[in-house]
Amino acid sequence: MPTPTPSYRRDSLRDDLLAAAIVAVLLIPQSLAYALLAGLPPQVGLYASVLPLVAYALVGASSVNAVGPAAVLALMTLQAIAPLAGQVDPAAAALVLACEVGLLLALAAALKLDALAALLSAPVLQGFSVGAAISIALSQLPALLGSPAQGVHLRALLKSWWEAAQTGPVLHLATAAFGLGALVLLLVARRHLQPLAARWLRHDLAQLVGRAAPLAVIALAIALAWALASPSHGVAVVGALPTLQLPLGLPLLDADLWLALLPSATLLALVTFVSSFAVAERLGLQRGEHVDGRRELAGLAAANLVAGVSGGMPVGGSFSRSALNADAGARTRWAGAWTALLLALAALLLAAPLAWLPRAVLAATIVVPVLAAAEWKAFGQAWRYSRREALLMGLVAAITVLHTAQWALGVGVVISIALLLQHAARPHAALIGRVPGTEHYRNVERYATELTPGVLSLRVDESLLFLNARQLPALVARHLDAHPDTRRVVLQMTPVNRIDLSGLEALATLQTVLRERGIRLDLSEVKGPVLDGLRAAQWSRWFAGRLYLSHHQAVRDEQGMAP
Amino acid sequence: MPTPTPSYRRDSLRDDLLAAAIVAVLLIPQSLAYALLAGLPPQVGLYASVLPLVAYALVGASSVNAVGPAAVLALMTLQAIAPLAGQVDPAAAALVLACEVGLLLALAAALKLDALAALLSAPVLQGFSVGAAISIALSQLPALLGSPAQGVHLRALLKSWWEAAQTGPVLHLATAAFGLGALVLLLVARRHLQPLAARWLRHDLAQLVGRAAPLAVIALAIALAWALASPSHGVAVVGALPTLQLPLGLPLLDADLWLALLPSATLLALVTFVSSFAVAERLGLQRGEHVDGRRELAGLAAANLVAGVSGGMPVGGSFSRSALNADAGARTRWAGAWTALLLALAALLLAAPLAWLPRAVLAATIVVPVLAAAEWKAFGQAWRYSRREALLMGLVAAITVLHTAQWALGVGVVISIALLLQHAARPHAALIGRVPGTEHYRNVERYATELTPGVLSLRVDESLLFLNARQLPALVARHLDAHPDTRRVVLQMTPVNRIDLSGLEALATLQTVLRERGIRLDLSEVKGPVLDGLRAAQWSRWFAGRLYLSHHQAVRDEQGMAP
Repeated sequence: MPTPTPSYRRDSLRDDLLAAAIVAVLLIPQSLAYALLAGLPPQVGLYASVLPLVAYALVGASSVNAVGPAAVLALMTLQAIAPLAGQVDPAAAALVLACEVGLLLALAAALKLDALAALLSAPVLQGFSVGAAISIALSQLPALLGSPAQGVHLRALLKSWWEAAQTGPVLHLATAAFGLGALVLLLVARRHLQPLAARWLRHDLAQLVGRAAPLAVIALAIALAWALASPSHGVAVVGALPTLQLPLGLPLLDADLWLALLPSATLLALVTFVSSFAVAERLGLQRGEHVDGRRELAGLAAANLVAGVSGGMPVGGSFSRSALNADAGARTRWAGAWTALLLALAALLLAAPLAWLPRAVLAATIVVPVLAAAEWKAFGQAWRYSRREALLMGLVAAITVLHTAQWALGVGVVISIALLLQHAARPHAALIGRVPGTEHYRNVERYATELTPGVLSLRVDESLLFLNARQLPALVARHLDAHPDTRRVVLQMTPVNRIDLSGLEALATLQTVLRERGIRLDLSEVKGPVLDGLRAAQWSRWFAGRLYLSHHQAVRDEQGMAP
Repeated sequence: MPTPTPSYRRDSLRDDLLAAAIVAVLLIPQSLAYALLAGLPPQVGLYASVLPLVAYALVGASSVNAVGPAAVLALMTLQAIAPLAGQVDPAAAALVLACEVGLLLALAAALKLDALAALLSAPVLQGFSVGAAISIALSQLPALLGSPAQGVHLRALLKSWWEAAQTGPVLHLATAAFGLGALVLLLVARRHLQPLAARWLRHDLAQLVGRAAPLAVIALAIALAWALASPSHGVAVVGALPTLQLPLGLPLLDADLWLALLPSATLLALVTFVSSFAVAERLGLQRGEHVDGRRELAGLAAANLVAGVSGGMPVGGSFSRSALNADAGARTRWAGAWTALLLALAALLLAAPLAWLPRAVLAATIVVPVLAAAEWKAFGQAWRYSRREALLMGLVAAITVLHTAQWALGVGVVISIALLLQHAARPHAALIGRVPGTEHYRNVERYATELTPGVLSLRVDESLLFLNARQLPALVARHLDAHPDTRRVVLQMTPVNRIDLSGLEALATLQTVLRERGIRLDLSEVKGPVLDGLRAAQWSRWFAGRLYLSHHQAVRDEQGMAP
C-alpha cells in the first residue's frame, strides 16, 4: 500500500481530503454519542477521535479502516467502569482502560498473538453482535424517551425504570417527539434514501448520500431545538462543551485500579482486534489488499495508548465508519490523519450549534445503525446447518443482554472449544470400496463400490490425536468382525493431517492386535508432513507394514491385476 | 461375555477359583501396603479389597480387570486427605472420598461421559506415571530405611528428613537391612526368576511363578522377623490388625468435608477410569473382547460406592493385578468375586503371621513394581517425534513429583488441548498437481507433478473450523498471486472432516472474492457427512460452483481431454 513519499500523488491527496471531510463531519455526533453511551462526558469522544486516528495512520495496517470510538466498545467500556463508579472518576478510569488495552495489544503484536483472534468463532461473534445491539438499544431507550431511568445492566435499567415510573411520568413528551421522530426519519432514510438518490446520481454518490443521512437529521434537529427553544421545555441537549483542549497527560497510576480493570481490558483488547481486523480484512479483500495481523495489532495499540494519554477512551475500527471511509473514496490511510485534523477544526467551529442537539436524537443515531448491523439472519441459517452452534449463538446473545459482554464472550469461547473437542473426539473410519472404472475409493454406504476380497480398506476420517486415538483399534476390530476373511487392513490416511504421540501409540497397538490375528497393516496416502514426523520417530523399527502413495496402488499390490 | 447362568461351566469355575486363590494371596500384602501408602490404617486396604470386588463383578464390563486399591490412587488419596489432617480422621475422609468418586463415576456413566477419558493424552499419562512412580518411591524411602521422616510432598519429605537427621541417625540398620534386602531380592526375581523357571515349566506357569515372587519374599521376611524377634530391635512391623470386621455404615455427612474433597475426587475419578479402562481394553483386545466404557464406569462406580460404605478407600484396576489375574487363568469376571471371598478368608487366617511382616519389606513390594511400570522409555521416543509433547511429558512428571497429581493432570490436560488448538489454528492449503499417469493428485513441493494451466488445485489440509477458517480467503489469494492466469480454483476437500459455521462463512467470502476477480470456485471430494450438512443449510442458494466426486474429474471437466 502506498506510503507517504514525495510522490503522494495529487489525486490521492484530493480523494483522501474529500473522504476525510465527509467522515469527520459524521464522526462528530457519533463520537459524542458513543462517549455518552459509555457513561463519559461527551467531549471524551471527540478527544478519542483526534490523536488516536493519527497514531493509527502512522502504524496501522489497513488503508481503509477508520479508527475511533465504536458502539460495542463503548458498551464494554461502560460495563467495565460501572463497578468502580463510586471510587473513581469515570473519565479517569476510561483513560486507564485505554492504556491497558493499548499495552495488551502491543504485547500481542510483539508475541505474534494475532492468531488468538481466531478463538472467537462466527456464532459467538454473531450472537454477541445481536446481544450487544439489543443491550445498546435498551440502554438508549431512556434518553430516547426522556425518562430519567438509567442502568448499566438490563436488570438495573428495568429497576430504575420501575422506580422512575412510580414517581413521575414514564416519558417526556417533547423529548420523545425528538427521539422517536429522529428514529423514524433515520429508518426511512436507511431504506429509501439511497434508491431515491440513485435515480439521479451515480451509484457511489448515491451510496454516499444514503450514508450521510444522519447528518441531515442532526442538522434538522439542531435547527428545530434552537427554534423551539426546547431546552427550556425540558428537552435534554448535549449542552455547551467545555473549552476543547486536548488534555495530554499520563493516566492515574493506581495499581489497584489497573488490576481491577485488567480483565475487562483483556476482553476489550480481544474484541477490538477481532472486529477491527474483520472489517479491515473484508474491505481489504475487496481492494486486493492483504492486511497483516501483527501490524493491525500494532496500529490499534498505538491508537489506544495515545487515546489513554490524550483524554480519550478505548477505540477501534467499526464497519459503518470504515465502509463510509471507503465509499467516500479514501485512497490511503492518511485519510485517517486528515479526518483527525478536520474533526478537530470542525469541533471547534461547530461547538456552538452542537450544544443545541437533543440527546434523544443522538441516541437515535446510535440505535439505528447498531440494530441494522447486528446479524439477525444468522440465527436462521445457523439453525438449519448446526443446531449446537445456533444454540451457542443464542446463549451468547442472551448472556450479553442479561449480564455482560465479558461473560458472554468467555462462555462463548469455552463452549466453542468444547464443541470442537467433542467432534474431534468422535472418530470415524469409513469402510471404502473402489468406484468402478476409476482409481477412486469412497464410502461403501454412500456410493456403489466394489470391495476387494481379503483386503479391508478403511479411510480414517480425523487426525489421530489423543482425543480419539485410543478408539482406533476397537473401531478397526468392529469392522473386522463383519469381514472375518480379511488378510490385510489398509488405512487410507488422506484425512489424517496430524498424528500425535497418542495416535502413534494407537497405531502400534493396532498393529500388535492385528498381528496376533495374522493380519498385516498397511497405510496409504500418508501426507508429507505426517510422513516426515514418522521417519523422525524411526518408526520403521516397529512398523512392519508398507506405505503406498495411493490407495489404489495399495489394494492392487496383492491382486496382481491391471487397474 | 459369559454371564452367571446355571451353565457356569465346571471348568470356568475351576479356572476362576484357581486364579482367585493366587490373586487373593498376592492381594493381601498389597492391600496393606497401599493403605499405608495412603496414610491410612493397614486394614482399610483389606476392607477395600473385599466387597468392592464383588460389586465390580456384578456390574463391571471387563472379565479380567482386578479391582482394588492401586498405587497411584493411593498416592492421590494421600495428597487429597493430607490438607485436612488436623480436622478429620484420615480413614473417615477416605470413605467420603471413595463415595464421591463412586457418585461421580455413576454420574459419568449416566451421562455417557466415558469419552472424557480421552482428555488424558499419552504424554500426560506417561509423564504422570513416571512422576507418580518417583513420588511413591520417595515416599516409601523412609519406611524402607527406618527413618522417622515423613511427608506428603517432596518438600515436606525432605524437610522432615533434614530435621530427623539433626536429632538422630538417618536410618535404622536392621530395618534398612530388611528393606534393601527385600528390594534387591525383588529386583533380581523380576529379571531372572521367570527365565529361570521357564527352563523347566510351561511358559504361562513360568510367568505365574515370576509374578508370584513377592509372596516368597514376604514369607521369607515374616519368617526372619519372627525368628530374629525384630520388633524388639526396633524394626517396625505391620503389627496386630484389629479384629477384622467389615465396618458397614454411611460415611460422615459433613457438607464442608465433601466440598473440600470434591476437586480431588473429580481427578481421582478421572484417573481411576482412565487407568482401569486402559488396562481392561489392552487385556480385552488380546482376548478379542470389547470393553464398554459406560459399563466400566458403572462397575468402578459401584466398587467405589461400596468401598465408601464398608470401611475401604478409593479403588480401581491396576495393570499388575489384572495381568496376574489373566495369567492365573481367570475366565470370567466372577473370578473377582471369588478373589474377594478367598481374600477375606485368608486375611482371617493369615492375620497372625502378617503381624510380623516388617513395614520396610512392604515398602519394597510397592516400590519395585511401581518403578518398573513407569514408562521411562517413552521420553526418548517422544523427544524424537514431537518436542512439544516430550516437554509436556516432562512437565507433568515434574509437577507430579514437586507438587501434586491433581495439578500435574490439570496442567497436562490444558496444555494438551492448547497444543491441539494451536495446530488446528494453522491451516495449510497445499498446491497439488497430477502425478503423471495416474488420477492421483499430490503436493507439488514433494512430488513430480503436472499442473493444469488455468486451474488452481488446492488441497485444504484441515477441517474448516473457527480457529482457521478466516485465513482461507487470504491463503487462496496468496496462491493466486503466484498464478495470475487462473480461471478456476478447485479445492480438494478430502482432509476436511467438518465445516462449522465459521468455515461456511469463509467459503462464502472466498467465493465472493474470487467472483470479483472473475474466477469460479469448485469443490472436489467433499465427504459425505460434510455434504449432508451443506445441503441442510441450503447452500445451493449462494454457492454457484460445482461439486466433483474426484479431483481428477474436476480438473478434467474443462479440459475435455481423456485421462
